[in-house]
Amino acid sequence: MIQQREITLKPRPRGFHLVTGEIMSQFPRLPKTGIVNIFTKHTSCGLTINENADPDVRVDMETIFNHLVPEMTCHRENCGAYINASEQRGHLHGHDRLEYVHTLEGSDDMPAHAKSTLSGVSLTIPITDGRLNLGTWQGIYLCEYRNYGGARKLVVTIIGE
Amino acid sequence: MIQQREITLKPRPRGFHLVTGEIMSQFPRLPKTGIVNIFTKHTSCGLTINENADPDVRVDMETIFNHLVPEMTCHRENCGAYINASEQRGHLHGHDRLEYVHTLEGSDDMPAHAKSTLSGVSLTIPITDGRLNLGTWQGIYLCEYRNYGGARKLVVTIIGE
Amino acid sequence: MIQQREITLKPRPRGFHLVTGEIMSQFPRLPKTGIVNIFTKHTSCGLTINENADPDVRVDMETIFNHLVPEMTCHRENCGAYINASEQRGHLHGHDRLEYVHTLEGSDDMPAHAKSTLSGVSLTIPITDGRLNLGTWQGIYLCEYRNYGGARKLVVTIIGE
Repeated sequence: MIQQREITLKPRPRGFHLVTGEIMSQFPRLPKTGIVNIFTKHTSCGLTINENADPDVRVDMETIFNHLVPEMTCHRENCGAYINASEQRGHLHGHDRLEYVHTLEGSDDMPAHAKSTLSGVSLTIPITDGRLNLGTWQGIYLCEYRNYGGARKLVVTIIGE
Repeated sequence: MIQQREITLKPRPRGFHLVTGEIMSQFPRLPKTGIVNIFTKHTSCGLTINENADPDVRVDMETIFNHLVPEMTCHRENCGAYINASEQRGHLHGHDRLEYVHTLEGSDDMPAHAKSTLSGVSLTIPITDGRLNLGTWQGIYLCEYRNYGGARKLVVTIIGE
Repeated sequence: MIQQREITLKPRPRGFHLVTGEIMSQFPRLPKTGIVNIFTKHTSCGLTINENADPDVRVDMETIFNHLVPEMTCHRENCGAYINASEQRGHLHGHDRLEYVHTLEGSDDMPAHAKSTLSGVSLTIPITDGRLNLGTWQGIYLCEYRNYGGARKLVVTIIGE
């Protein structure tokens, strides 16, 4: 038995957001045993599973992902530090150009594409006894990598019996 | 036809570990054709597929993941280097505080959450002719990101015919 | 209903390549509703979903992945910069040894394994109304992490009804 539906997540600011409830409340009846695949139809956000309790984890995830894929590079001689647009003022040297070729859509766009590949755009989660079989501390995150990403479309496919 | 079972992997030290045998020996009869989804119910370890032959690959994976998500940052003026707790003594400057907000569970905890998102917490692998259809050099890794992560629970769901 | 077939992608140079057409043209008849799992049987390439329009995105993805997992480290005193083999000449200091233990297969090999884990080696994509339900801007990328990776084998499993 296969159920499938497209749903839309409300717009959220850049960052990592717990969305387990917003997604699963739209699927009140799950099969007894199976899997659910949740797929986002965008290339500048992502889906992941992570800690559902301490909101600080979501703050640190944003710090770490910005460290992994920074928006700019310092081109002052002998510097070359990787920084984010928001750190530009605090940095000792001026930053005059972006590291990336794909820059027309803003300095947050290309990093968003790369982060999307790092986290992935889909999740496959087991269903057991008619419920999502997440661990006690697990929740579904929408990873919003754009400053203003808008509403995000998901396709949810449930395979079970 | 859907089969599903929770299994537990024995505790392992921090690092990347080949666990194909420990998982699949618990599923002696697979369907002829299908997929298996392997999902870990934790937020500080991960699952991935990588090289099954040279143990050095697992050593280098640990080096690379520590480089990607270091535990600390050096706050001595003009330094800002990212380092791991184990490198603290060797580094030229002292390190007085963590980069992260979520630090109560130890300096290896927040990096473990981020690494878990980078590798992912689940795998979907094809089954062909009643066997896992991995490439010659592929094996399933448990990525243990905590220093002492303990036993790890997996949910294994097999869909096939 | 489950369909499954192994296919081979033609050899491509190191970099990120749009392969949606090359894969899906081999599956002219999809079920009405379901999922497709695409799995690569290698440990030094990857599969991801990303922007299908501007080829610059694929150029920047290569830049970013090389930044994330560089091939070498500079061991001149007080340097320690991470660089790629191609940057060796341009760097101020000489580089005398690799950072990694697993180096017998070339300086691009161990980074390729790590990048493979970062992007992942499989994708699960929804099928809706008999078509792959990708977003307008989404395409399937083969991430070729080796300089000369050769032809790449995929297992494609379609579950639907």
